[in-house]
Amino acid sequence: MEHKIQNEQEMMMRHGMSHVLAKAICSMYPDVKLSIGPAIDTGFYYDIDCPKSITPEDFEAIEKKMSEIISQNQDFVRKEVSKAEALKMFKDNPYKVELIEGLADDEVISVYYLGDDWVDLCRGPHVENTKYLRGFAFKIDKVAGAYWRGDEKNKMLQRIYCFGFAKKEDLKEHLRLVQEAKERDHRKLGKDLGIFMFSDLVGRGLPMWLPNGFLLRHALSEYIMNKELSLGYKHVMTPSLGNINLYKTSGHWDHYKDDMFPAMQLDDEEGYVLRPMNCPHHMVMFKNSMHSYRDLPLRIAEIANDFRFEDSGALCGIERTRAFTQNDSHIFCTPEQIEQEVKGVIDLILDVYKDFGFKNYSFRLSLRDKNNVEKYFGNDELWEKSEKALRQILKNSGAEYYEAEGEAAFYGPKIDVQVFSALGHEVTLSTVQLDYQLPERFELEYTDENDNKVRPVVIHRAILGSLDRFVAFLLEETKGNLPTWLCPVQVHVMNIADVHLSYAKSVAEKLEQAGVRVFVDSRNESIGKKIREAQLAKIPYMLIVGDKEVEAGAVAVRKRGLGDQGAVKVEEFIKSIAAEIANKSL
Amino acid sequence: MEHKIQNEQEMMMRHGMSHVLAKAICSMYPDVKLSIGPAIDTGFYYDIDCPKSITPEDFEAIEKKMSEIISQNQDFVRKEVSKAEALKMFKDNPYKVELIEGLADDEVISVYYLGDDWVDLCRGPHVENTKYLRGFAFKIDKVAGAYWRGDEKNKMLQRIYCFGFAKKEDLKEHLRLVQEAKERDHRKLGKDLGIFMFSDLVGRGLPMWLPNGFLLRHALSEYIMNKELSLGYKHVMTPSLGNINLYKTSGHWDHYKDDMFPAMQLDDEEGYVLRPMNCPHHMVMFKNSMHSYRDLPLRIAEIANDFRFEDSGALCGIERTRAFTQNDSHIFCTPEQIEQEVKGVIDLILDVYKDFGFKNYSFRLSLRDKNNVEKYFGNDELWEKSEKALRQILKNSGAEYYEAEGEAAFYGPKIDVQVFSALGHEVTLSTVQLDYQLPERFELEYTDENDNKVRPVVIHRAILGSLDRFVAFLLEETKGNLPTWLCPVQVHVMNIADVHLSYAKSVAEKLEQAGVRVFVDSRNESIGKKIREAQLAKIPYMLIVGDKEVEAGAVAVRKRGLGDQGAVKVEEFIKSIAAEIANKSL
Repeated sequence: MEHKIQNEQEMMMRHGMSHVLAKAICSMYPDVKLSIGPAIDTGFYYDIDCPKSITPEDFEAIEKKMSEIISQNQDFVRKEVSKAEALKMFKDNPYKVELIEGLADDEVISVYYLGDDWVDLCRGPHVENTKYLRGFAFKIDKVAGAYWRGDEKNKMLQRIYCFGFAKKEDLKEHLRLVQEAKERDHRKLGKDLGIFMFSDLVGRGLPMWLPNGFLLRHALSEYIMNKELSLGYKHVMTPSLGNINLYKTSGHWDHYKDDMFPAMQLDDEEGYVLRPMNCPHHMVMFKNSMHSYRDLPLRIAEIANDFRFEDSGALCGIERTRAFTQNDSHIFCTPEQIEQEVKGVIDLILDVYKDFGFKNYSFRLSLRDKNNVEKYFGNDELWEKSEKALRQILKNSGAEYYEAEGEAAFYGPKIDVQVFSALGHEVTLSTVQLDYQLPERFELEYTDENDNKVRPVVIHRAILGSLDRFVAFLLEETKGNLPTWLCPVQVHVMNIADVHLSYAKSVAEKLEQAGVRVFVDSRNESIGKKIREAQLAKIPYMLIVGDKEVEAGAVAVRKRGLGDQGAVKVEEFIKSIAAEIANKSL
Repeated sequence: MEHKIQNEQEMMMRHGMSHVLAKAICSMYPDVKLSIGPAIDTGFYYDIDCPKSITPEDFEAIEKKMSEIISQNQDFVRKEVSKAEALKMFKDNPYKVELIEGLADDEVISVYYLGDDWVDLCRGPHVENTKYLRGFAFKIDKVAGAYWRGDEKNKMLQRIYCFGFAKKEDLKEHLRLVQEAKERDHRKLGKDLGIFMFSDLVGRGLPMWLPNGFLLRHALSEYIMNKELSLGYKHVMTPSLGNINLYKTSGHWDHYKDDMFPAMQLDDEEGYVLRPMNCPHHMVMFKNSMHSYRDLPLRIAEIANDFRFEDSGALCGIERTRAFTQNDSHIFCTPEQIEQEVKGVIDLILDVYKDFGFKNYSFRLSLRDKNNVEKYFGNDELWEKSEKALRQILKNSGAEYYEAEGEAAFYGPKIDVQVFSALGHEVTLSTVQLDYQLPERFELEYTDENDNKVRPVVIHRAILGSLDRFVAFLLEETKGNLPTWLCPVQVHVMNIADVHLSYAKSVAEKLEQAGVRVFVDSRNESIGKKIREAQLAKIPYMLIVGDKEVEAGAVAVRKRGLGDQGAVKVEEFIKSIAAEIANKSL
């Protein structure tokens, strides 16, 4: 309760600050027309129509003016007026006029004076005097375009955002978080490091992976495929689209159509659609041949392209896209094998998270929403059975978990792994799902010990989840300082002068032979510049070679984040980086 | 000329043989109704409406009856009749009646008697007597369903196909080719070896790559990507679809729309389409950053998914599909770099063909059709320039080549590499294309030595072409006996008895550590059966382990096609197969 009161108090102060901002602007730019200026979670803003474009260069003067107003102990005074009076008071401001005209004729309208010389249309409440705003910590953040009333047919106004907190330390912490978020923003890192790009001409939400991004993705896919191979998974490759009948059979057409791209209709009879997930293709593949209980479990895996028509508002870099790649698998097994297989998947997840150093995650048992059963298919009995089975496996595994109703897939319950990011976001990376429904719909069968035809159970699982989202997550977690084994380019070799170039090239060649991704920066630039650029590109190792190194068969090593490491023999460096890569050191 | 006469003579004999076949059928199955029976390139057929289903078990009896007719020296006798007479003669046969009714009322209609007791409606000409058919070599091939007049609304008839040649050795050679084609049919091999499958529910022409197929494809892509990496190519990954505006910019929307899947239209303004090729995406990627002449050539490569809406009649296994994967690249270079870059591509092609042992190929300079210039875009001058440039490069390279008008891409001339298959087919595997047009349409630029903005030239190239078609070709060439380095499974280890299983597993583990793809056949089956199944699966090496091998730390080696190779130490075998794989031995 106390927290709520404190929060209301802070929101009122923010609101007062937006008046202070507006008054400051009016005194500095008399031609300005104010529109609205509310308090928000992180401070306040004011939308203004002003002939002068406010730029970051103006922020300091505005802030100074605001502090001046506050220091003058100006009163906030409420006055109630009739609609006619209000219209008269604000007759020169079309925005306020429009707001007033929108009110009922008999409504009591309040205005707030700040000092004697300035007034704004406002519901209030406000603090009594600016002296109560003295300790308030604020900072202008940015100016952004905003359409009047949010309608793109209206005029574009300037929205001046300010951070504002009752306590100085709250502002400080918020500024730190903002800076942190900027440094970790995968969209900026992705651009700076040449990982991916987007183009409106190609289409929104359709990532284009640049050379560095491809190397990173390739390293990731090879890594997870090798893990899977060693666990008996079999990889396949199935097409990115399917006949609509495939999705009618699977149930996606009824339950998932709105999230899919529109169909490619050839005629009334035949149509194709980009696949939102791979399950139906893998069901068809299982059905393609006869299976005995001796062949189970059959673990079909695919690094698969999928497509979902996300709202353009929901798109976010490579975190949420319309085309993405899943690290997917479907395990076909007998009912008796469920526990062992789900356990195997959980072990794989833990193993992978260890490789990446993820420590902050928890298991979520995602159940259906019992008050909204028409969203799901299958009967109550099967749902109860599957939910119980997953709960029991989680209990037996000893893992900590929590339950979440309404988070199940439409075909079955799941275990999701929720990872908490450095910015405090919760991301679902991995998932294990139990499914009795698709085997039924596709009429899958195997022959059991008694020569009877019975249905297998299907376990859907993803470990890295979407490779795209996984890369976004990795970039944010590491600020782009990827572990060496994943770095698109692992070493820059830099020659001090032209005479050292052939030696630099011979070093690079040896590194390449050891499987290291290396670039020779042979440009006619100073070593200082070469180092700075390699630092910006977050290259893990820089090897500088000059007279001394050539003579000694050595390289002068600079390590990312640690700086100069001294000179070592070439062979020694190769041995050490090869081990670092092989061990996937963090 | 002599050849043509001989051929006409042979076609007349085939036509005569179709009457002999029909007469034989009539005498054996009196309820039959004949429709039509022409000569074809490899023999002849007759379409019949017969209550009895003709099966391969009936072939011998029919052939015997045919030989009997021939040996009776029956006359072919032509008789001309009026339409009314013809209708009366064939009144019990609705097919002949329909044919006759289609003729003009005053047409002279001919019928041919074969012997006194059998007559058919026929234009002729024919040999005079069956004694002239005595040396004719024939063999019933198969029975297939065929709609009357090729219209699926009509009744399905039985078409009896016969091979037939004037010379015995021609039949023999043809039968050999048919057998060869069967053994090399990639569709059958693909199924038998678990390479790929199709499903009507997923969609025609959309291959699903099974685990063995995936391993093969993966080995191929890694192989070609490593070649490309060593030549300075940079790999990217771009989405499988694009906004329609992308294809309007590139010109595909005007020139290629009919070969594309239908668009996914969101509203009147926005639509997406599956990409038929990757060029537009790569153009957009080039345009994404600034380029100096110092950065060129820039070689962007992609193992890319593409989609073309082939007619269902044109689909053929994985040779011609609607979804396929290209080993594609676009080289952005200065005009001065064209020769060096095209030469580099030709060298890469020769290098790759050497690795695969392809010897039977030739270069084709594919030019535009000057009588049909509206099919192409760009102006005459640019076309002349590009065609001349490619011709000169081919001349300078010393490669043998021929020119083909009308085979150019719509945006520029090409050098295609035509490979001749074991079955005598001509397949275009690789291609190099010169393009001044797309850089113009996408307004690509780089800064030259004088700081001027100028257009780069684009070289489109594919080496393996479509991976799908390449695998089809490889399967046909090798009859499924892929070189060891490409085999999905390279070694089967077989234990003679249970006591040898742990040794078998330890051998397999050592092989895996050496990067060999290995399977332990530990089933409780006889070694004979295990060997037979490994042979059917075309596994390059079988390692049999029993008491003697366990004791000696050895394996008994059987090599595909060569049989027993005796026992060798495990380490020795690993060394030898690892070298075979590393050298990509054929």
